[in-house]
Amino acid sequence: MPTDKKMLQDRLATIEGHIKGIRKMVDDSAYCVDVLKQTFAVERALQRFESELLKGHLATCVPAGFKEGRNAAMIGELTELFELSRK
Amino acid sequence: MPTDKKMLQDRLATIEGHIKGIRKMVDDSAYCVDVLKQTFAVERALQRFESELLKGHLATCVPAGFKEGRNAAMIGELTELFELSRK
Amino acid sequence: MPTDKKMLQDRLATIEGHIKGIRKMVDDSAYCVDVLKQTFAVERALQRFESELLKGHLATCVPAGFKEGRNAAMIGELTELFELSRK
Amino acid sequence: MPTDKKMLQDRLATIEGHIKGIRKMVDDSAYCVDVLKQTFAVERALQRFESELLKGHLATCVPAGFKEGRNAAMIGELTELFELSRK
Repeated sequence: MPTDKKMLQDRLATIEGHIKGIRKMVDDSAYCVDVLKQTFAVERALQRFESELLKGHLATCVPAGFKEGRNAAMIGELTELFELSRK
Repeated sequence: MPTDKKMLQDRLATIEGHIKGIRKMVDDSAYCVDVLKQTFAVERALQRFESELLKGHLATCVPAGFKEGRNAAMIGELTELFELSRK
Repeated sequence: MPTDKKMLQDRLATIEGHIKGIRKMVDDSAYCVDVLKQTFAVERALQRFESELLKGHLATCVPAGFKEGRNAAMIGELTELFELSRK
Repeated sequence: MPTDKKMLQDRLATIEGHIKGIRKMVDDSAYCVDVLKQTFAVERALQRFESELLKGHLATCVPAGFKEGRNAAMIGELTELFELSRK
């Protein structure tokens, strides 16, 4: 994991806090639309987290993998990630 | 919030647990690809949560809002939700 | 279809022209990355078209449907559209 | 472009025909919901086209690029494609 670990940890801590806040909203029977706006915001935060992680992966693990001749593994993983990211 | 509250609470609890698991993976410097697969799974779980919430909203709050003459508010909210869901 | 028909027709004509351009690129064996950038642009153009159409639907057909008591049909359609838009 | 060109051409021809059909629906003032279902279907067809193209790119152009030492270009393009695919 070549991406700045502290930054990833901070982002996940924020996302977890966001989820806790949404749980509180549901406990308090908040208006559906307000809850949905918050879950959409969490999705966007997750996507920014994924972009950071992927950039690090492409910049570090992928070239290293090609150097070591593990081309098929690298390509198979990237294809799978691309498919999963659009589900 | 007309959707089954217990079900929504259970789903959010599961999502929060999933995020905690991903934080542990990052602490342990797990392989990027394995972390990404987990965050994609959380996004899909959030989307299923949102579908349930939206179904309840469309089936209950929206018809009630129209009955009370709050058409503009209902329509504005739905347009906004649709835009946000695709960001 | 309450949305400005001329505007919708113009947008679709542009999208069709864009697709024709991509076909030409493939015929000419263009670089994959350049082709992909163009198809992503077409997807975004389709999404803007859909937003316009949906806004008109929410502002006109949906309130009319509720007024006529066709609540179940309106709600079922909106739920389906939301699901399809995220596939 | 290492992906089977004939297959890509056939898919784009089908997508163009699909767009023409949607233009006809708009000319005929079809119901918004029916038009939206068709544009969502076109988006899915574009996404399947993109998956094929990307698989070919990852399997052929990317390893070739790394072999030739164009790592930075390959990585920059993949990062950009990933970002664009989620817009």
